[in-house]
Amino acid sequence: MKKITSFALAALALTGCGRKESPLKPNIVFFLVDDFGWVDSSVQYGDELYPRQKMFHTPSMERLARQSCVMSSGYACSLSTPTRTSLMSGMNSAHTRITTYTSPEKNVPTDAAGGTIGFINDNESDIFARSDWNWNGIATQPGTEHSMVISPMVRFLRDAGYYTIHVGKAHWGPSGTTGCNPYNMGFLVNVAGSCNGFPKSYLGEENYANTKELWTHNAIQGLAEYYGTDTFLTEALTLEAKKTLEQPIKTGQPFYLYMSHYGVHTPITADKRFYQKYIDEGCDEGEARYASMVEGVDKSLGDLMDFLEEKGVADNTIIIFMSDNGGHSIDERKGGIAHTQNAPLREGKASVYEGGIRVPLMFYWPGKNLVGKCDVPVMPEDIFPTILEMAGVKDYKTVQPLDGESLVELITTGSGVSPERDLVFHMPHQWRIEDRDDIDFMTAMRRGDWKIVYRMHTGDIELYNLKEDLSEKHNVASEHPDIVASMAGALSNKLRSWDAVMPIDRTTGKPCPLPDEI
Amino acid sequence: MKKITSFALAALALTGCGRKESPLKPNIVFFLVDDFGWVDSSVQYGDELYPRQKMFHTPSMERLARQSCVMSSGYACSLSTPTRTSLMSGMNSAHTRITTYTSPEKNVPTDAAGGTIGFINDNESDIFARSDWNWNGIATQPGTEHSMVISPMVRFLRDAGYYTIHVGKAHWGPSGTTGCNPYNMGFLVNVAGSCNGFPKSYLGEENYANTKELWTHNAIQGLAEYYGTDTFLTEALTLEAKKTLEQPIKTGQPFYLYMSHYGVHTPITADKRFYQKYIDEGCDEGEARYASMVEGVDKSLGDLMDFLEEKGVADNTIIIFMSDNGGHSIDERKGGIAHTQNAPLREGKASVYEGGIRVPLMFYWPGKNLVGKCDVPVMPEDIFPTILEMAGVKDYKTVQPLDGESLVELITTGSGVSPERDLVFHMPHQWRIEDRDDIDFMTAMRRGDWKIVYRMHTGDIELYNLKEDLSEKHNVASEHPDIVASMAGALSNKLRSWDAVMPIDRTTGKPCPLPDEI
Repeated sequence: MKKITSFALAALALTGCGRKESPLKPNIVFFLVDDFGWVDSSVQYGDELYPRQKMFHTPSMERLARQSCVMSSGYACSLSTPTRTSLMSGMNSAHTRITTYTSPEKNVPTDAAGGTIGFINDNESDIFARSDWNWNGIATQPGTEHSMVISPMVRFLRDAGYYTIHVGKAHWGPSGTTGCNPYNMGFLVNVAGSCNGFPKSYLGEENYANTKELWTHNAIQGLAEYYGTDTFLTEALTLEAKKTLEQPIKTGQPFYLYMSHYGVHTPITADKRFYQKYIDEGCDEGEARYASMVEGVDKSLGDLMDFLEEKGVADNTIIIFMSDNGGHSIDERKGGIAHTQNAPLREGKASVYEGGIRVPLMFYWPGKNLVGKCDVPVMPEDIFPTILEMAGVKDYKTVQPLDGESLVELITTGSGVSPERDLVFHMPHQWRIEDRDDIDFMTAMRRGDWKIVYRMHTGDIELYNLKEDLSEKHNVASEHPDIVASMAGALSNKLRSWDAVMPIDRTTGKPCPLPDEI
Repeated sequence: MKKITSFALAALALTGCGRKESPLKPNIVFFLVDDFGWVDSSVQYGDELYPRQKMFHTPSMERLARQSCVMSSGYACSLSTPTRTSLMSGMNSAHTRITTYTSPEKNVPTDAAGGTIGFINDNESDIFARSDWNWNGIATQPGTEHSMVISPMVRFLRDAGYYTIHVGKAHWGPSGTTGCNPYNMGFLVNVAGSCNGFPKSYLGEENYANTKELWTHNAIQGLAEYYGTDTFLTEALTLEAKKTLEQPIKTGQPFYLYMSHYGVHTPITADKRFYQKYIDEGCDEGEARYASMVEGVDKSLGDLMDFLEEKGVADNTIIIFMSDNGGHSIDERKGGIAHTQNAPLREGKASVYEGGIRVPLMFYWPGKNLVGKCDVPVMPEDIFPTILEMAGVKDYKTVQPLDGESLVELITTGSGVSPERDLVFHMPHQWRIEDRDDIDFMTAMRRGDWKIVYRMHTGDIELYNLKEDLSEKHNVASEHPDIVASMAGALSNKLRSWDAVMPIDRTTGKPCPLPDEI
């Protein structure tokens, strides 16, 4: 039972005075997993349960899925910061010009020869030079070069009376900028959110890298309570999230919890609570490590759902479950065979092929009639207006143009968002690794079942029919020149209208041609 | 003008319905400075403005003092954690058994040969062995050895509807314990509070020690926004405090801001904004460094007062200004001559002589008739009931016994607290430095004008009349054996009743005798 509090009493008083009673605002938990692939759980997002999915034990995700609108074509950007800044801005990442991940250090582009903490990028592209992208991320006030000034979504929630809580990974921008501080984004509470994009260590035994030996900017802050204990980072964040939820639940204030796990990003690290089970089931060590991390996140979801039920607020709490990009398909510690871990999807994180961008996405909204399964493709920039509509926030004004559409009608009726929208995925950079044939310098657009993929370093345009060829194995561009031309034109026009970044051609000194300029 | 908000509207509605209007709860800012001596500002706490005070420019403290009840005999414990845990628990530090500072690492006693981050204590006492004190600080739940479980004061404020904000230094206990996390203490917001007791670096240019070269547990967390900028730590904390105050001010929720500066603790570091002025005025470099840090804190106070005025809430915001112990009298980088920097007070930080325990303390309470100057001695354990009475919180139940008395009547009428109370200052440890003749292994008690000081390593009891001898230069014990006996008995009984820690005599293996056992 929710306690009657001063807030609630005040609301009653308002009613008692004959004022109009406004409906109870729903709480919202945005549960974001990092680098979590579409087939990395036992939840069926596609037409079938694919072989890899049988490796995972994710009962809490299944529990959520049974009550949710499960999206088969939920999309993110192919990398962390682009998705996270898109969620916060409501813009396509090509439009924010934040098209790869940001460094924890200001003015340090991470692409090509830029280098960043923990990596050395000395394999700069011999074709392209770095473009002028927003490597300082989003900003909440002007004054930082190479940043996009926005009105952050969470501020509108806060200003509408929400108790806004940030737990976990932020990664909207580097240190030394307004973009790295959750308190600037509209959050009232921050635990562990900062400039970094992954944890140097998941282990309480290692103080989450807050030691002289391990420290980098990826040491996780704000969790000293768990230093020296065997508390895996995923668990520590869950415990802190529950702690910070006590207050709004007690006072009856609607809350927005951005539960942004560092898991299951690299370094792929065994979560000891679950690791041995997967070894016993025949997984290789890498797979067992990864699956144990996934199950740790699953337990977090279940613990939060249980907590909301115990506190009597589950029936008024929306849960949106999502990953920030596709599963990592190259990291050796993850096990399996490189480039196959997202099968049937092609490639993985950082790529605009489906393995890099199609992600787990589901919407749980108690008390609403939800479509159980939805095949309409949706984008990270759709989340901004969706959450604000869920919260009943209207007439908000942003300094940035919004590129997304609310999904509320879609998930409740199955319509309202066209399945034929043009959806753009733009990655005009060299990522950070050598093994990058299907990753670097690419852009893509989906329209209904069709998808074009443009390779900047060759000028090739590929065409796939995702309905018939989910794995993007059969390039049918030569069979449908009219579709290619139409989509290449539309994609190019989008990119032009957004002043999107293109890499610089070393031979001409000019930006690489757009698809319709080839 | 304060905006009319939903909270305020609700309150109006309650009134409109004929319910009884409850008085507006006051906001409270507890402004705590670290290692800030009684004569380290231009505010006159004593009978006169002492020579050293003319060195300091603290116009904001003067501005506050003009409107405040200024305490001439405000006391803290002689060290940080004892005072801070006393403030949070309402207990005397001899009673919490937290009688010296805690390490950032769990199970690491800092006294005698214990050692801690950044220090090496290889000069263990040849007389005493370490006693069994609570070197893991206060805890909010059982399960941590060497800790004192308490009901933290801030939880009562939070539960009474206060928006509770922690900014700066916490230092109630080590990492790996509940005591290091402000969210456990009842704070809803935390910026930069953790297990550490001082900053490894005050400089934004050094990322507050969040660099590979500088990192220790004393790297300050939560301030990545200011990395690489010239923002002195004192300023960064002030900016974050103002940011977090926006919300309760906007909604009309009463707030408690624990503005707990790391300044002016070591490392004594020039605050460039003010340093040159002091050099130009003839200070030595150490004095200029220290005075510039003090002026940085003064600016913070003034900025917050201005902010509260601009926001229209100053007339309902109490400000309590305090230091956590006396000024450091040994650190070379502070300038001046060792052991003299608190003159006319004897000694400094860590000592139970007045220089270690008598601190700046003032109470600003707009709308109340305050006594302008008050000479009744008061203790850190008095702050717990004082703040709760100010906030109108009654009938609270604590797991710990409370040793303090509310000061509300005292500061408003000048009476209600006896000037003859027995006040205990207990430091049964070796501090961390060699130069410790008047510091280590001492306990003291004040009763009215009289003060006894008991030296555990010699068994001597000294008696001073503070009214005639503020500087504790004239030991008059031999002239007043009756007073010595009475006070030694009372002190011993207090320590016995609190099961206070005494060091272990190496020759007997037993605790050092209490003063009345000599």
